[in-house]
Amino acid sequence: MVANPKFIAATAHVDDAAVKPLPRSRKIYVAGARPDVRVPMREISQSDTPASFGAERNAPIFVYDTSGPYTDPDARIDIRKGLPALRARWIDERADTETLAAPSSRYGQARLADPQLAEMRFGLERKPRRALAGRTVTQMHYARRGIVTPEMEFVAIRENCLREKYLASLPPAQRELIGRGHRGQGFGAAIPPVITPEFVRAEVARGRAIVPANINHPESEPMIIGRNFLTKINANIGNSAVSSGIAEEVEKMTWAIRWGGDTVMDLSTGKHIHETREWIVRNSPVPIGTVPIYQALEKVDGRAEELTWEIYRDTLVEQAEQGVDYFTIHAGVRLAFIPLTAKRMTGIVSRGGSIMAKWCLAHHEESFLYERFEEICEIMAAYDVAFSLGDGLRPGSIYDANDEAQLAELRTLGELTDIAWKRDCQVMIEGPGHVPMQLIRENMELELAQCKEAPFYTLGPLTTDIAPGYDHITSAIGAAMIGWYGTAMLCYVTPKEHLGLPDKDDVKDGIVAYKIAAHAADLAKGHPGAQIRDNALSKARFEFRWEDQFNLGLDPDKAKQFHDETLPQEGAKLAHFCSMCGPHFCSMKITQDVRDFAAKQGVSEDEALVAGMAQKAAEFVEQGGEIYRKA
Amino acid sequence: MVANPKFIAATAHVDDAAVKPLPRSRKIYVAGARPDVRVPMREISQSDTPASFGAERNAPIFVYDTSGPYTDPDARIDIRKGLPALRARWIDERADTETLAAPSSRYGQARLADPQLAEMRFGLERKPRRALAGRTVTQMHYARRGIVTPEMEFVAIRENCLREKYLASLPPAQRELIGRGHRGQGFGAAIPPVITPEFVRAEVARGRAIVPANINHPESEPMIIGRNFLTKINANIGNSAVSSGIAEEVEKMTWAIRWGGDTVMDLSTGKHIHETREWIVRNSPVPIGTVPIYQALEKVDGRAEELTWEIYRDTLVEQAEQGVDYFTIHAGVRLAFIPLTAKRMTGIVSRGGSIMAKWCLAHHEESFLYERFEEICEIMAAYDVAFSLGDGLRPGSIYDANDEAQLAELRTLGELTDIAWKRDCQVMIEGPGHVPMQLIRENMELELAQCKEAPFYTLGPLTTDIAPGYDHITSAIGAAMIGWYGTAMLCYVTPKEHLGLPDKDDVKDGIVAYKIAAHAADLAKGHPGAQIRDNALSKARFEFRWEDQFNLGLDPDKAKQFHDETLPQEGAKLAHFCSMCGPHFCSMKITQDVRDFAAKQGVSEDEALVAGMAQKAAEFVEQGGEIYRKA
Repeated sequence: MVANPKFIAATAHVDDAAVKPLPRSRKIYVAGARPDVRVPMREISQSDTPASFGAERNAPIFVYDTSGPYTDPDARIDIRKGLPALRARWIDERADTETLAAPSSRYGQARLADPQLAEMRFGLERKPRRALAGRTVTQMHYARRGIVTPEMEFVAIRENCLREKYLASLPPAQRELIGRGHRGQGFGAAIPPVITPEFVRAEVARGRAIVPANINHPESEPMIIGRNFLTKINANIGNSAVSSGIAEEVEKMTWAIRWGGDTVMDLSTGKHIHETREWIVRNSPVPIGTVPIYQALEKVDGRAEELTWEIYRDTLVEQAEQGVDYFTIHAGVRLAFIPLTAKRMTGIVSRGGSIMAKWCLAHHEESFLYERFEEICEIMAAYDVAFSLGDGLRPGSIYDANDEAQLAELRTLGELTDIAWKRDCQVMIEGPGHVPMQLIRENMELELAQCKEAPFYTLGPLTTDIAPGYDHITSAIGAAMIGWYGTAMLCYVTPKEHLGLPDKDDVKDGIVAYKIAAHAADLAKGHPGAQIRDNALSKARFEFRWEDQFNLGLDPDKAKQFHDETLPQEGAKLAHFCSMCGPHFCSMKITQDVRDFAAKQGVSEDEALVAGMAQKAAEFVEQGGEIYRKA
Repeated sequence: MVANPKFIAATAHVDDAAVKPLPRSRKIYVAGARPDVRVPMREISQSDTPASFGAERNAPIFVYDTSGPYTDPDARIDIRKGLPALRARWIDERADTETLAAPSSRYGQARLADPQLAEMRFGLERKPRRALAGRTVTQMHYARRGIVTPEMEFVAIRENCLREKYLASLPPAQRELIGRGHRGQGFGAAIPPVITPEFVRAEVARGRAIVPANINHPESEPMIIGRNFLTKINANIGNSAVSSGIAEEVEKMTWAIRWGGDTVMDLSTGKHIHETREWIVRNSPVPIGTVPIYQALEKVDGRAEELTWEIYRDTLVEQAEQGVDYFTIHAGVRLAFIPLTAKRMTGIVSRGGSIMAKWCLAHHEESFLYERFEEICEIMAAYDVAFSLGDGLRPGSIYDANDEAQLAELRTLGELTDIAWKRDCQVMIEGPGHVPMQLIRENMELELAQCKEAPFYTLGPLTTDIAPGYDHITSAIGAAMIGWYGTAMLCYVTPKEHLGLPDKDDVKDGIVAYKIAAHAADLAKGHPGAQIRDNALSKARFEFRWEDQFNLGLDPDKAKQFHDETLPQEGAKLAHFCSMCGPHFCSMKITQDVRDFAAKQGVSEDEALVAGMAQKAAEFVEQGGEIYRKA
C-alpha cells in the first residue's frame, strides 16, 4: 500500500531550510565496535587564527547532532519512504521478538482496513514487532542482565562526542586553554570523564538513565536521558483543528531536531492522529513521545467519563506498534488527590491530569491507570516503550507550586517506579510547571528521593507568571536551574505558551532557549568537556574570527543576521583583525609596539608578553567599542 | 538660547507608540506628606469574573511605573522644553547649593560658546547648581544626619506601590488568594512588609542602598537601588558612528522606560556626546548613568596614553553639571592587576577597563583614577553623583570567570567604597559579566563581604558563551539568580550583544528579559507582595479573562498579538468562558452538573464543591486544549 502521491506531494521533499547543513558544518559518522554502529556528529571547521593573534590552526570541533540524516547531503531523503531502519538488525539479532502479521490493536487494524484513509496512509511495508511471549525487550532488561547492547555503545560514543580526539589534535598550549573547565557543583550527579558503554549499561540497569528505543522505531538514533549524561531537551509538536496537517507536522519535527531537539512529543489531536503519528515516527531519528490518553479521549468523542481500560489499552498497543518510544501516563492522579486541588489558584492544568480527574469523579472510582498499572507495564515491556510518568497535578501558577496535590502525586509516582522497575520497564518522571526559584531545588530533591533517582523530565519550570509572550524566558531560567540540580531532560516552552499554537519561529525560539538552559546546566554540573565549546567560541570571539563565532554558536543564521544588520559589508566578517580597524590598531603594529615597549621600558621578555597581551586586550575592546555597548 | 526648530523637528513629538498608555492602564499619582511629593504609579483595571467562576469584581491593581510623564495623557510633552523639574524646590529648600553663572567645566563653557552647536543645543535656561563650599549634598549625607528627604519619602511610597490599599479593597476570600505568597529565601536580605521613609533613610545611611539624584537632574523621579528593595534594571543606550543621532537616542530612552528601565546609561560616543547627553537628561524621568572616561578619551582623539587627570576631572564636572546621576569609574583597574589578565581567554573586555590598562602600561604608573580617588569623591559629593565602581577586569568569557584579576579588582572596590563613604558619597559596585551558574553565588558573597553590602550592579551574568544572538537569555538566567542572591540592579543585555547595535526591538527584548529576571528574583527573595501580580494574572488566566491576562503581563501588546495569531476573532477575547467552548463545556451547565453530582452521589455540599472545582479545572484545561500544547 503506497501513500497517494497527490496527498503527500507537498511532503515528499523537506523544506530546504530544514535540510541544508549548517555553515561550515559537516556530518560525520563515528564507527563503534561493530561497523553498523555509526554515530552521527557534526564537525564544525574553523578558520586559522590571524597573524596578530598568533597565526595558529584551529582544529574542527565536534558537536552532538540531533538532526538525523536530514543534514547529510549524502542521504537520500524521501519522507514517503521514511528513514533507514538502522537498528533493525540489532533488534533482530536479539531473537526475542516476533513479527506480527498485522497490528494487534483493534484500532490499528480498523485504520489499516479503512479505504478512505489510503490517501493519507504512510506506505510502510514493514510489519510490527512484539516481544515473544514471556520475553522482555527493554534496554533495562538487557542492562540488568549485563548485556551491552549496540544502542548502549552508540549512546556512549555519542555522549563523548570525540572530545578526546579533538583535544589530542590541539597543540599543548591550545589544549590547555580550550580543554580547561571550571569545577562543577554536581548535587550528587557524577559524570565520568569518559562515558563507556559499560557506564551506560550500569546507569540504565540502575534506573538512573533511560534509552528510549521502541523495537518498532528502528529508524531512531539511540540517545540517553539521565543526570550523569548531557542534559537533553524535548520539543512538542502536534496538529490541531487550527493547524494544517501531516506535512506541516513532519516539517516541524525536522525543524525541531535541526536546532537541537533530543526527543519530540507528538501531541496531535483531531481525526487523523493515527496517520499523522505514523508519518512522524517513520521520519524521525529522535525518540517520539506521546500522551495516549489524548487519543483515547478522541475515541470516545471527548467524553472523559466514557473512557475505559479496554479503549486505553488498545491505544497503548496501537501506538506501541507504531513505534512510539515513550508514553506520558498520568497514573499518579488518584481519586483521593483530586480534592487537594480544590483550593488551588489554577486547579488542574495538565490536560491528561484533568481527563483522569474527571473520569475518577464521574465514576467515583480509583483511576484505571493506577489500578491497571501492572498490565500497562506488560505492554511497555513487550515493545520497550519507556514510561514518562505524568505529573497530572503539576502547578499551573506560582501560587500552586509545591503544594500537597503535587507532592502527593510525586510520592505515588515513586511507588509506580518500583512496580515498573520490577518489570524491567524504563521510567522517567515528569515535573513542573510553575515554580518560583527558591522552591525549585526542593522539587529536584524530592524527586530523587521518592523516585529513587529515576530521570526527572520537567516542563520549565516557569519562575514567574507575569510575562505571557515570553514564557520561553521565564521558564529557561527555571530549566537551567533544575537542570543544574539534576533534571535529565527539559521540556521546552515556546513564547506562545498560554497564548496560542507555536509556529516555526516559536519552535526554534523555544528550542534555542532550552539548548541554552541545558548547556548552562551541563557547565554548572561540571560535565567534562562541556566548556570546550564555550572556550572555542570565546577564543574565536577574542580573535575576531566572526564567522567562527557565528558557526560555533547555537544559531549561526541569527548571529550572522544580527551582525550584518549593523555591519553588512563582507569585509567586516573577514578573519583579519586589521580589516575592521584603522592602521592605528593594526595587529602588526601592536606586535612591534610590544617589542618597542620591552626595549624602552627595559622590561623582561615575560613582562613584555604581559604588556603585549594587555595591549591586545585593550585593542580588542576598542575596536569592538563600535559594536559593544558595555560600560 | 533656543534649539533650532529645524534640527529638533523630528524630536518635538515623541513617537506615539512610546507615549500611549498601555491598555486599560491609567497613570495615577500618590501624594506624600507634602503635596509636591507626587509618586507616579500605573493602575491596571480588570474585568469582572464571569458568572461561571463566581461573578466577582476584580479591583484595579497598581504597578511600579518607570515611564514618567510620557504615559500621562494630561502631561504636555515637548522634548524641546524637557520635563518639569519636580525636585527643584526640594533641592532649593535644603539651602546648601549655589546657582552658578555658567558651567564651571572648561569643556562645558567651550561647548556653550561654540556658535556651530547652536543648532543642536538643548535650550536650557536653568543654570547649573553646585554644593556651597564645604557642603555635601548627597542623599547619604542627609540620611546619616537623620534627615528624611522628600526623595526618600517618594521612594518609600513608590516601593510599596499601594499594596496595602489594593489588598484592603478586596473581599476577604479574594484577599487571601491574591495576597498570599511563598516564603522567600533571602540570603541575608531582609525586606520589611511595608517600606517606611525611615527605612529608606536607614538603608541609604548604611550604604546598603543608593538614591541616585544629582541636584542638576531635578526632572528625575526618585528611585532606590538596594537589595532590600525591588530589584531594578538598567538599559544602555548610546549613539555611535553607525546610529543616527540625538532624536533617536531620546526616543530609545523613552522606549526603554516605557517597558520598565529603572535607570538608563548613556554610552554615546562620537562628536556630539555633550549635546546628546543634555537632551537625554532633560527629558529623562529616570536616573542617567555614564562612563565619563569614554568622553575623556574622545577629547584626546582616542589616544588612551594622552589622558590626563585634568581632562578627566573636567569631564566629571561637565557631566555632573549636566545632571548625570551616576558615573561608572574604573578606579579598581590598578597597574599591578594588569598582568593578571595576560593568561585570560578574552583579556580585558570592559572598554573603560582597557582604556585605563592601556594608560597604566603606557606610563607604567598607577591609575590616576585610583590615585585621585579622594578628589573624585569631592566632585561626587558636590553634586550628588553616585559612584558605580566599574569592574574593568570583569570576565569576558566563562573561562575567565572568578579569576584573580576579577577578584583583586573587587577587593580594591571594597577599599574605595570605604573612602567614598567617609565623604558621604553614594556607592554601588559593578559586577560581571560571564559566569557559569555554579560560580554566581561566590560573586555575590564576595561582593557583600568585601564591599560591605554596597549595592551590587551586575551585567547579566551570561551563563554560557555559546549562544550569540540570544545573550538576553543566557544572561537573564544568571541575572535572575544573582538578583535572588542579592544583586540590587541588573544591567540588561540585548539579543545583539557581541554582534551589533541594538535597535528598538532589541532594547525591548532586553528589557523584558530583565524585568522577568528582576521579578523572578523578587519572588525568590520573598519580597512582600511581589507575588500579587503573579496571583492576579493567574486568576485572570484561570477565569479566561484574556484581556486581563494580557494587560497584567509585562508586555500586553505582544501577548495580545500572539493570542490573535491563533484566534483572531474578537469573540475569542471576551471575558466569558462560554464564548470559547461548545455548549458541552458551558459554565452554567457545569454549575448544574456539580449540583446533580452532589445529589446523585449523595456527597456533602463540601465534597460537591470540591468536585465542582475539579470539574471546572478539567474544563479549563480541555477548552484550553485547543491552544495549550502541554502533556
